[in-house]
Amino acid sequence: MQHTLPVIAVNGVIDAQVSPLDRGFAYGDGVFETCKLQNAKIPLWDLHKDRLIKSCEKLFIPIAIDVLETQLAELISGLSIADTQNAVVKITVTRGQGGRGYSVPTLVTPTIVIGIFPAVNYPPHYFSDGITVRYCKQRLSVNPGLAGLKHLNRLEQILARAEWNDGSIAEGIMFDTRERLIEGVFSNIFLIKNGEIFTPDLSEAGVSGVMRRFIIETIAPKAGLNIQVKSLYVDDLLNADAIFLCNSLYGVWPVANLIDEKVLSFPIHKITCSLQDLITEALAS
Amino acid sequence: MQHTLPVIAVNGVIDAQVSPLDRGFAYGDGVFETCKLQNAKIPLWDLHKDRLIKSCEKLFIPIAIDVLETQLAELISGLSIADTQNAVVKITVTRGQGGRGYSVPTLVTPTIVIGIFPAVNYPPHYFSDGITVRYCKQRLSVNPGLAGLKHLNRLEQILARAEWNDGSIAEGIMFDTRERLIEGVFSNIFLIKNGEIFTPDLSEAGVSGVMRRFIIETIAPKAGLNIQVKSLYVDDLLNADAIFLCNSLYGVWPVANLIDEKVLSFPIHKITCSLQDLITEALAS
Repeated sequence: MQHTLPVIAVNGVIDAQVSPLDRGFAYGDGVFETCKLQNAKIPLWDLHKDRLIKSCEKLFIPIAIDVLETQLAELISGLSIADTQNAVVKITVTRGQGGRGYSVPTLVTPTIVIGIFPAVNYPPHYFSDGITVRYCKQRLSVNPGLAGLKHLNRLEQILARAEWNDGSIAEGIMFDTRERLIEGVFSNIFLIKNGEIFTPDLSEAGVSGVMRRFIIETIAPKAGLNIQVKSLYVDDLLNADAIFLCNSLYGVWPVANLIDEKVLSFPIHKITCSLQDLITEALAS
Repeated sequence: MQHTLPVIAVNGVIDAQVSPLDRGFAYGDGVFETCKLQNAKIPLWDLHKDRLIKSCEKLFIPIAIDVLETQLAELISGLSIADTQNAVVKITVTRGQGGRGYSVPTLVTPTIVIGIFPAVNYPPHYFSDGITVRYCKQRLSVNPGLAGLKHLNRLEQILARAEWNDGSIAEGIMFDTRERLIEGVFSNIFLIKNGEIFTPDLSEAGVSGVMRRFIIETIAPKAGLNIQVKSLYVDDLLNADAIFLCNSLYGVWPVANLIDEKVLSFPIHKITCSLQDLITEALAS
């Protein structure tokens, strides 16, 4: 029997539910990954897996990654071929069931939820012509122990995303409580200035994205470029020659317009285009 | 039929489960209350309810408080008389089911989970002789938009509570990332110095506890005392004449020992004892 999307499995059981005692529900005590499914495979799976394992280590959640990979493969194998061509996979791992308080249970059996959702149909011109972004008022908190992790404590993103309803605005730009530029609500950010590329240091706030890592470690070097990771501020943004965002689902979007007191326009830089081309090429192979 | 503890109801249905698409599970998108159940009633329910309503407002979760109160009353009415005498009620309200992303659904049907758990048997000498506390390395993040709320993003508390296993340590003291004294992992904190009482300002970090509010607004005035809410630091803690902690379950615990480089001992102040007496009296009536 083939499943229709969305299909969601809890610990390998399709359509199962989770306990209200699950620590994911009680405290956001877990992590997640959002991945693209393309030709029945997850591009950059090794990077997703690496972040998942490291995040679980940091939160000392004893994830059995082989069990997770088996469940994932089984779920994908139950899809129609059409659905495997282009979909979204969301993997959530929590510390499983626990008692009422914050203490970590002595025996932890993590909960693994794998959901496969229809692809998001972003307008193709986001990729080619760039997007319009705005600033978010909501700040990201500074917390070195949790920075970088894609954990389940996401109220800041929810409040930030709720700041606008205007469908012409594709993303919101977020700063931390120390007014450092950090990321988009669901993207990482890069600035181009005088032919150099910069991206915010995420050691104190933000989510260390898989596509961001792929660009820094693989794509930029292929293009003969070096990306500088450092603290950036609003002035760096305003003085940039060009801006682009990235995530695992959409790849790279140039920023065409930034809504400040007035709308600031940015050109689509040839570096952005060449990175887009290199990513498309790398993920097609 | 009488239920045995714990008994947990999801949207009024005992032993029901929650969807993996629930935003509480996905993002910690919700709030909770932990209350004492005593003689079939929740002491300070009006304050719990007030915080719940205000927290939901701040997160724009459209909670139907009358529905919640009906479910709570029904659940309590199903308990044995013995269980109603002394138990713990945990109420969780989330934004309900949603899609994959951070965007708030157009139509929100909150999930209400009410659990009644056996009372925690804290050693009686915690109340009379005071407790031993330690510092937590984990810092609380600064976030004015979320400060004060008892929301479901609790990874900081989980990491803090996981720092010690020594059963002789009853609580951990937490500072924010700006090194301000904020609270205990599951308590609020007060300092006594030269007959004056101080408690940390929680407008940028921390949970605004119901017992803390009751002490500030009702109990301290009854004792002819005024409590000063302000920014406090580690030196204020070290130079205090006495320290006490509070929450809705245990009331007030004096701090007898603070583990610093060496163990610092604090006396049990007569102010602490008189506040304990006034709380006991107020909640018995």
